[in-house]
Amino acid sequence: MSAFTHLWNQIAPIGRAASGGYLRYALTEPELTLRDWFRSQAARRDMLVTDDGNGNLFAWRGEPWAPGTVLTGSHFDSVPHGGGYDGPLGIVSAFLAADKIDKSRKIAIAAFVEEEGGRFGVPCLGSRLLTGAIAPQQAAALEDRDGVSFGQALGSTPSGAQLDKVKNLKAFVELHVEQGRALDVPVGVASAIWPHGRWRMDFAGVGDHAGTTRMADRHDPMLTFAFTVLAANKEARLTGAHATVGRVQVEPNATNAIPSLVRGWLDARAADTATLDRLVDGVVRKATERAGRDGTTFTISPESVTGEVAFDTALAERLAKTLGDAPILPTGAGHDAGVLSAHIPTAMLFVRNPTGVSHSPAEYAEDADCEAGIEALAKVLEEL
Amino acid sequence: MSAFTHLWNQIAPIGRAASGGYLRYALTEPELTLRDWFRSQAARRDMLVTDDGNGNLFAWRGEPWAPGTVLTGSHFDSVPHGGGYDGPLGIVSAFLAADKIDKSRKIAIAAFVEEEGGRFGVPCLGSRLLTGAIAPQQAAALEDRDGVSFGQALGSTPSGAQLDKVKNLKAFVELHVEQGRALDVPVGVASAIWPHGRWRMDFAGVGDHAGTTRMADRHDPMLTFAFTVLAANKEARLTGAHATVGRVQVEPNATNAIPSLVRGWLDARAADTATLDRLVDGVVRKATERAGRDGTTFTISPESVTGEVAFDTALAERLAKTLGDAPILPTGAGHDAGVLSAHIPTAMLFVRNPTGVSHSPAEYAEDADCEAGIEALAKVLEEL
Repeated sequence: MSAFTHLWNQIAPIGRAASGGYLRYALTEPELTLRDWFRSQAARRDMLVTDDGNGNLFAWRGEPWAPGTVLTGSHFDSVPHGGGYDGPLGIVSAFLAADKIDKSRKIAIAAFVEEEGGRFGVPCLGSRLLTGAIAPQQAAALEDRDGVSFGQALGSTPSGAQLDKVKNLKAFVELHVEQGRALDVPVGVASAIWPHGRWRMDFAGVGDHAGTTRMADRHDPMLTFAFTVLAANKEARLTGAHATVGRVQVEPNATNAIPSLVRGWLDARAADTATLDRLVDGVVRKATERAGRDGTTFTISPESVTGEVAFDTALAERLAKTLGDAPILPTGAGHDAGVLSAHIPTAMLFVRNPTGVSHSPAEYAEDADCEAGIEALAKVLEEL
Repeated sequence: MSAFTHLWNQIAPIGRAASGGYLRYALTEPELTLRDWFRSQAARRDMLVTDDGNGNLFAWRGEPWAPGTVLTGSHFDSVPHGGGYDGPLGIVSAFLAADKIDKSRKIAIAAFVEEEGGRFGVPCLGSRLLTGAIAPQQAAALEDRDGVSFGQALGSTPSGAQLDKVKNLKAFVELHVEQGRALDVPVGVASAIWPHGRWRMDFAGVGDHAGTTRMADRHDPMLTFAFTVLAANKEARLTGAHATVGRVQVEPNATNAIPSLVRGWLDARAADTATLDRLVDGVVRKATERAGRDGTTFTISPESVTGEVAFDTALAERLAKTLGDAPILPTGAGHDAGVLSAHIPTAMLFVRNPTGVSHSPAEYAEDADCEAGIEALAKVLEEL
C-alpha cells in the first residue's frame, strides 16, 4: 500500500454520510476528529502545532512563524454531502511532501477553518480572520443553522489579524483537487481565481392558506423566487458567467401554506468583475420587476464578494517550469490561497479530476494523480 | 371576561412561537399539553374521555358511542407557524356549547389527531384511521422530518377502523374558522369541500461545484423545480383552480453546490375533480418537458388525494334555517368533517374570518363572532 493510500484510508471514514458524501462542517465532531488526526500526524514528524486563536491550525518544521517559512496545506471542512478530496487532499499531500524533502527546510502545514462557509456562511473564514479581511466580532456573531455562533463553536472571540506573522512567510502553496474539466495531465498550476461572491436574497410575501386563498389574492414569494432562479440562469448564460441557486429556506415550509418568506442564496462567478457586476445587476433588476408583479418584496445582500485574484505570475511560471511545463489555468472556485495572495506570494497546484465533479459525493481523483501531486508539491517546497 | 375569552386565554400561550404563530405539531409537547387541557375540561363537565387507539380523543356526555350521540369538535394541531383558530376554535366552542344545552342530550366532543398533516404528511390522519381510509400499518410507518414514525409517536400501531361505532353517531358537526374571504356574517354553513390533494415532486439532477461547472455542463434540478412552480401557478389561473408549492427540500442545500435533488410539494384544489385532474396533468406535462431540456428527471407521487365532499344538503339547509338563514358556502380546505361525511350525516359551521388569512400568524376571528359561533353550535346540537 502506498504512503498516500495508507494515510487516505485513515481519514476516509471520518464524517462520511450514507450518501457517500461528507458532513465535515467546521468545528463539529468529524472535523474535530480530523484536527486530532492533524495533531497526531504532526507529532509523528516532530512538528509543533500551534493554533492562531482563529480556529486555524499550523504544524511547524522550525520555529513558528520563523521568517522564510514556506506554508502549504488546505482545509478539512466540506460542503454538506461534498466529496472527500476538496480540502483534505491538500493537507494529506502536505504531510507526505514534507516526508520527501530535506528536513532542514522551514515549512509549515495549515488546516484552515471554515473554508467552504458551509456552516457559518462566509467562505475562507479562517484565512480572512488571520489576514484581517473580516473583523473578529463580526465573525464571532455568524450563526449556523441551529443558531450556534462561530464564537460559541470556537469557545471564544477569534483573535483576529496577525499580518506581521503572515508576512514572515516566504510563500503559501495550496494543493487542491481540480474542480472543473480543464486539466488533462496529472498536475497543473493556478493562474487566477474568478471574481465571485454569494448574495442572500429574501423574497417576502403574505403567508396564507393554500386551499382557500384565491390565486388573484395571493402574495406568494415562491413565484418571485422561482422566476429569479430562472432569470439568474439566463443572465449567466448570456454573460458567459456562472450563477447558481443551491440553497433555499422557506417559512413556514408547509405543504398547505403559501410561504411568508423564501430565502435563496445566489452564488455568482465570472472571468472579470465587470461581467460579475452585470450578471448580479441583471438578476436584481428582473427579481425586482417580478416582485412588483407578485405583490412581494425582494431584497438582496452580499454575504461575501471577492474580486479577481491573480496569483503571482512569476511564481506560477517558475513552478510550472519546475514541474516540466505544467499547464497554467484559472479556476472558478474560491480558496484560502486567494485570501492570502493579497499579502504574500501565493500559488496553487491542481490535481486532475477525471470527471470535473466537485462538491458532490462523486468528486474523485486517481491515486496515481494524487501521488504525482505529492511529488510536485515536494519539488515546489524544495525549489522555493 | 366572557366564558369564551376565559377558555381562549388558557390555551393561547401553548405552543406559540416568537413569530406569533403556533408550533402545535401532533403528539409533540404543545399538542400533548392541549390534550391534557381537553381531559381537564371534560372532567369539569363530568364527561368521560376515551382514546380510540388512533390518537383521537373523545369526551362523552352519555355512554361512549351510544346510538344517537351527536359528535362535535375539531383538532389541536397546527401547520408550522399557523394561526391559533384553525382547529382549537372548534374544540373550545364545543365545550362552551355543551354548557349551554340540556344536560340530557347525548353529545361527544372530538380532538382528532394530525388534521393538518403538518408532522407526518397525511392530513386528517386521525379521522382517516377511525374510518378505515388509511391502513394502520401504513399510518404507523409515516415519518416526521426527524425520522420519528407515527407509530413511535403514538406508542403503538394505531388500532384502525371502528366503523360500527362511528355509525352509531347521529351526526358530526365541526365548527371551524373560515379560511377565505367569502363569509360576511358571523356564522355560515358548509356546502362542500373542493377536491384536493398533495403530491410530492422529486427533481433529480447532478450535484456539482457551483463555481467550476460550466452552465452548459449542468444538470441542475433547481431550474426544473423553478419552472414547475411557475407552470403550476399558470395552470391554476387558467383552470380557475388553486395550486401552491409551499414546501421545499434541497440536497445538499449548500450555497456553492449545484443541488443533486430538489423536492417540492404541490398542493392543488379545484371546484371539481375533472378540473383538478386537468391541472395536475398540465403540471406533470410541463415539468416533464422541462426536465428533458435540463437533463434532470422529474417524478411525482400523490401523498393524499380526496375527491369532492358534498356535505348532506338537507342537513346543511336545515342548519342554515335554524341559524336564521345563514349563508351556505363551499371551501377549499380539507377537514375531518370531510372524511366522516362518507359514513354519517355531517355538517360544518364557519365563523367569519375578517381578513380571510389562515395558516399564518395573522389568522384571526373577532371574539363576538366566536361567541356567535358558540351560540350557533349550541342551537344546532339542540336541534339535531
